[in-house]
Amino acid sequence: MKTPLLQVALDHLNLPDALAATRYLAPHVDVLEAGTILCAAEGARVVAELRALYPDHTIVADLKVADAGAVLAEMVFSRGANWMTVICCAPYATMEKALEVARRYDGDIQIELYGEWTFDQAAEWKRIGLSQAIYHRGRDAQAAGKGWDEEDLGKIRRLAEMGFAVSITGGLTPADVPQFAGIPAQAFISGRTLYGADDPAAAARAFREAIDREW
Amino acid sequence: MKTPLLQVALDHLNLPDALAATRYLAPHVDVLEAGTILCAAEGARVVAELRALYPDHTIVADLKVADAGAVLAEMVFSRGANWMTVICCAPYATMEKALEVARRYDGDIQIELYGEWTFDQAAEWKRIGLSQAIYHRGRDAQAAGKGWDEEDLGKIRRLAEMGFAVSITGGLTPADVPQFAGIPAQAFISGRTLYGADDPAAAARAFREAIDREW
Repeated sequence: MKTPLLQVALDHLNLPDALAATRYLAPHVDVLEAGTILCAAEGARVVAELRALYPDHTIVADLKVADAGAVLAEMVFSRGANWMTVICCAPYATMEKALEVARRYDGDIQIELYGEWTFDQAAEWKRIGLSQAIYHRGRDAQAAGKGWDEEDLGKIRRLAEMGFAVSITGGLTPADVPQFAGIPAQAFISGRTLYGADDPAAAARAFREAIDREW
Repeated sequence: MKTPLLQVALDHLNLPDALAATRYLAPHVDVLEAGTILCAAEGARVVAELRALYPDHTIVADLKVADAGAVLAEMVFSRGANWMTVICCAPYATMEKALEVARRYDGDIQIELYGEWTFDQAAEWKRIGLSQAIYHRGRDAQAAGKGWDEEDLGKIRRLAEMGFAVSITGGLTPADVPQFAGIPAQAFISGRTLYGADDPAAAARAFREAIDREW
């Protein structure tokens, strides 16, 4: 089983704050995520600046695309993104068009699993060629007190069995990692736990050590 | 029945192109929509610049929010938006938090109806206080040849009966307007049909006349 990657979700309100975080975190993470909030605040330049600064990192544009798959994919992949997210309720046509553009750039599309979705839909996503999913305990769901439970873990396992490379996110800390032992996770995604720490680099190293202990 | 508003969806790839369009179109439309593509390209400054230029128009931030409802709502309402869109598969908590912020600014939240959704969910949206929905024939669905049909019209009518102010969009032209006669539509949303016309102002006037003929 491959060791899961460590991904930092940059959900800052502006680029300077995000870059202040990547300056410390980039050496300690594999994947830099241009978060939804940051992209909404600053636009596509987020991807271009991250690519300019970090030529060797995997960069994700977390746009949670619901429509206009080709246009938005072209926008971010042409600026250097490796992966772009689509929301699970997007029409299949949107996902297909996004994937078509992604492939032209050697990139990939990740389906963000949110709210209502079914394994029948997941089978269709596989059929149209998608192979990455993000299992997300939403920010607002977290705030509402929803924790990781057997249902979450069962769904993640089932997606992995279907052949999805599953990234896991939603208020994760190193202490959560052992719960996922034995699951072939693609990446653990963490945001404020890393960049909000007193010592972000140490926080990232602690997260990496928690992953390494289990895989 | 109130006469539906005319809304232009600014789905340009950059702000200068969008502003070149609003210069001609603003006098002829009620609602300026900072489209998903434009917001993804340029970020939240889109809302701020539209508000600075057009103090009296209704401005929509079409972010199709799926998470982080409060943060994204604060971002766009503080910059002058009147309405912000959330995607129909967003968790209810996200919608509620967005609405809470919207109300502080005398703004409102619109649910973008996309892909899979049910009238049971719609009842829940009403229950938590949402009252605007956007019935959307997706860009990619349009490209796949899906037209307006009785199923679309029936759903729009049913949403209106539930008390939703329904805006209608998706490749609309003035020729489509008569199909919606008798439906209490809140707004017709059009993009390239207006700003892509040889004479955008004339295209907007023609759309408005089509509305006025039926309402």
